[in-house]
Amino acid sequence: MSARLPSLPALSPDAALAALRQRQPLVQCITNAVVTNFTANALLALGASPAMCDIPGEAQVFASVADGVLVNLGTPTREQRDAAREAVQSGTPWVLDPVAVGALPVRTALAHELVLAHPAIIRGNPSEIRALAGDGSGGRGVDSIDGPDAARAAARELARSCGAVVAVSGEIDLITDGQRETRVAGGSALLTRVTGGGCSLGATMAAFLGVTDAYSAAVAGSAIHAAASEVAASSSAGPGTFAVAFLDALAVVDGAALVRQGRLSSDGGWGATP
Amino acid sequence: MSARLPSLPALSPDAALAALRQRQPLVQCITNAVVTNFTANALLALGASPAMCDIPGEAQVFASVADGVLVNLGTPTREQRDAAREAVQSGTPWVLDPVAVGALPVRTALAHELVLAHPAIIRGNPSEIRALAGDGSGGRGVDSIDGPDAARAAARELARSCGAVVAVSGEIDLITDGQRETRVAGGSALLTRVTGGGCSLGATMAAFLGVTDAYSAAVAGSAIHAAASEVAASSSAGPGTFAVAFLDALAVVDGAALVRQGRLSSDGGWGATP
Amino acid sequence: MSARLPSLPALSPDAALAALRQRQPLVQCITNAVVTNFTANALLALGASPAMCDIPGEAQVFASVADGVLVNLGTPTREQRDAAREAVQSGTPWVLDPVAVGALPVRTALAHELVLAHPAIIRGNPSEIRALAGDGSGGRGVDSIDGPDAARAAARELARSCGAVVAVSGEIDLITDGQRETRVAGGSALLTRVTGGGCSLGATMAAFLGVTDAYSAAVAGSAIHAAASEVAASSSAGPGTFAVAFLDALAVVDGAALVRQGRLSSDGGWGATP
Repeated sequence: MSARLPSLPALSPDAALAALRQRQPLVQCITNAVVTNFTANALLALGASPAMCDIPGEAQVFASVADGVLVNLGTPTREQRDAAREAVQSGTPWVLDPVAVGALPVRTALAHELVLAHPAIIRGNPSEIRALAGDGSGGRGVDSIDGPDAARAAARELARSCGAVVAVSGEIDLITDGQRETRVAGGSALLTRVTGGGCSLGATMAAFLGVTDAYSAAVAGSAIHAAASEVAASSSAGPGTFAVAFLDALAVVDGAALVRQGRLSSDGGWGATP
Repeated sequence: MSARLPSLPALSPDAALAALRQRQPLVQCITNAVVTNFTANALLALGASPAMCDIPGEAQVFASVADGVLVNLGTPTREQRDAAREAVQSGTPWVLDPVAVGALPVRTALAHELVLAHPAIIRGNPSEIRALAGDGSGGRGVDSIDGPDAARAAARELARSCGAVVAVSGEIDLITDGQRETRVAGGSALLTRVTGGGCSLGATMAAFLGVTDAYSAAVAGSAIHAAASEVAASSSAGPGTFAVAFLDALAVVDGAALVRQGRLSSDGGWGATP
Repeated sequence: MSARLPSLPALSPDAALAALRQRQPLVQCITNAVVTNFTANALLALGASPAMCDIPGEAQVFASVADGVLVNLGTPTREQRDAAREAVQSGTPWVLDPVAVGALPVRTALAHELVLAHPAIIRGNPSEIRALAGDGSGGRGVDSIDGPDAARAAARELARSCGAVVAVSGEIDLITDGQRETRVAGGSALLTRVTGGGCSLGATMAAFLGVTDAYSAAVAGSAIHAAASEVAASSSAGPGTFAVAFLDALAVVDGAALVRQGRLSSDGGWGATP
């Protein structure tokens, strides 16, 4: 992992959730126009404190006091691109979400530039992770075409080459730092019928960066999203009610659901030193 | 219709819905900041695949692989205006939603420019359609003051002059290509108490452009929004729950509801060649 | 109060609500990307007519026909900053919401500039009001650290120095014009777990500026948000369902709930001339 990260302890997902709710980390989101509201509400429900500070001249100032930063490239206006470049200079650990990278030139160039600025976590779907690793053509935009295993080799290579934890989202999430590997199971297919599921997961991981190390943060983020979506799906009549119930669930889901039998599998323990 | 449109077949609304859910068309939305989230969720609920790709340098690249494009002028930043100009060069069929045209100078100039780029469908409220046709002053912004019939002559004239299908939204939606005319009845007054109803309808029509011709796409879009809003209204306690239930309904409403007795009336059959 | 305000009558909150629902004031919102949708839906639910017209070249045109204007500095892009400067020249009464002022340089400079353009109402949390009055460092962004009473002196001073009504949001809202002072009690802690509560309150106050004077508008806005959030909390399972129920409640809450026993306390009557 990057020497730039503060040496926060590894924590199990349930311990990370307890720490997050206690510390209420301040999370700066430079994110796309589609999901700002849902992302802010997800962070508030989770117990974090979101702020969408995304203009040049303020982004670095804010990042330097934030506990975690999200840079999501979904709708990267010129001001957001400059704000992202500012924010990642702050030394605060940050998450890169390279939405639709590979297929589209402006964000692809920016993503390759930002990767050099030491993200703590890179979160994407299989197509995006493969495109960022230089493997594959990037799919048709926001969609995930491949399963996580199709991106496994690319994820490990990307993690090693840039010193980040890489999280590949799918039916089963795959998290790796290039050596260790953890899989997070569960969740609901309804998450794919609502916008912002993946984008808010990146923000959740940024929140966990305020209380634990990057690997633990990625695992905890995936685990709470999986657990909350299971709760939400059980009381939903469709994608509209699911999105609402997902926010309710983030606020109440307990640590035990994050580490329930069958949720996590790892080749070395999710937080163990390899 | 414009020779630039692919020669997709005319389809009845129920057949168009089945085709949409099967093909999951990729819909590019250049749309306003207020409704991006609701629009993306409406498209996902419907079974389409939305992407809000709206910056210069990417908009045309994306439009060339999209199945349909929406250009909505609700909050037209400089970058969005340039992105719209790019996207409509792609040859992909597209919908123009000239929000508040007539009353406001920047978007009015842009709308008149874009009309020359061969939209497949123009969707607006009566004030907007009249303003775009050069008839009337455009109302007081986003509101519809006149009923659809007040815009009937303007709609037919606009359709003839620019070769587009024109859809006028109101209690009863009116769709015309300058010769044929179809009315779509039903819906709920609660749609007027929620933002994004009309804007997401434009996006829905863009989704249908991926599976059928422009006239059928406009009719099918109006029909599914009317049907889904009826379902939603029956289980809502107010505008908040209505918006959520509307998304649920889009995911499950069946084709029969789109063509139920009393929904459609036409002078030549909704999809018949005139 | 500023001589630029139209001489609308003072009204009690229940009378103001009745007037708003009857006149459906047109409210222009120049507001942040996170809350545009929620704000528009809150205004529609309330019975007002929102329009998010926020680009240079249109903002002043629209403001001159609007009944009230909101300028919220939450995500102040360059175009929004210029649009705000335009809109406040229109002579239409307007609300300033100085989100996160003090902590961040671009918006802080803009807020100090806009204060000179005679806002009718300034609404913020205690940290923001103190920062704008030159007292305190502004907190850590969007959060309120201090209680309303910590900002009481700053609010009175700010109101006197710029001729605006100042509304400090908190568990109990405090409204002052530098002489009179009204407190509005009630509400729900769930409002702090949802984004847009405070931002939409600024918009609601702007809507009331279309039917009553600035002091009455600020009190009525606080009162209806408190009343609606009480209704919503009673039927919510968490922050997701609360936000939805809040919109439902805005549409149906009656005037009596706004002035119920214990809601309002004032040193001179909420609408009395001092």
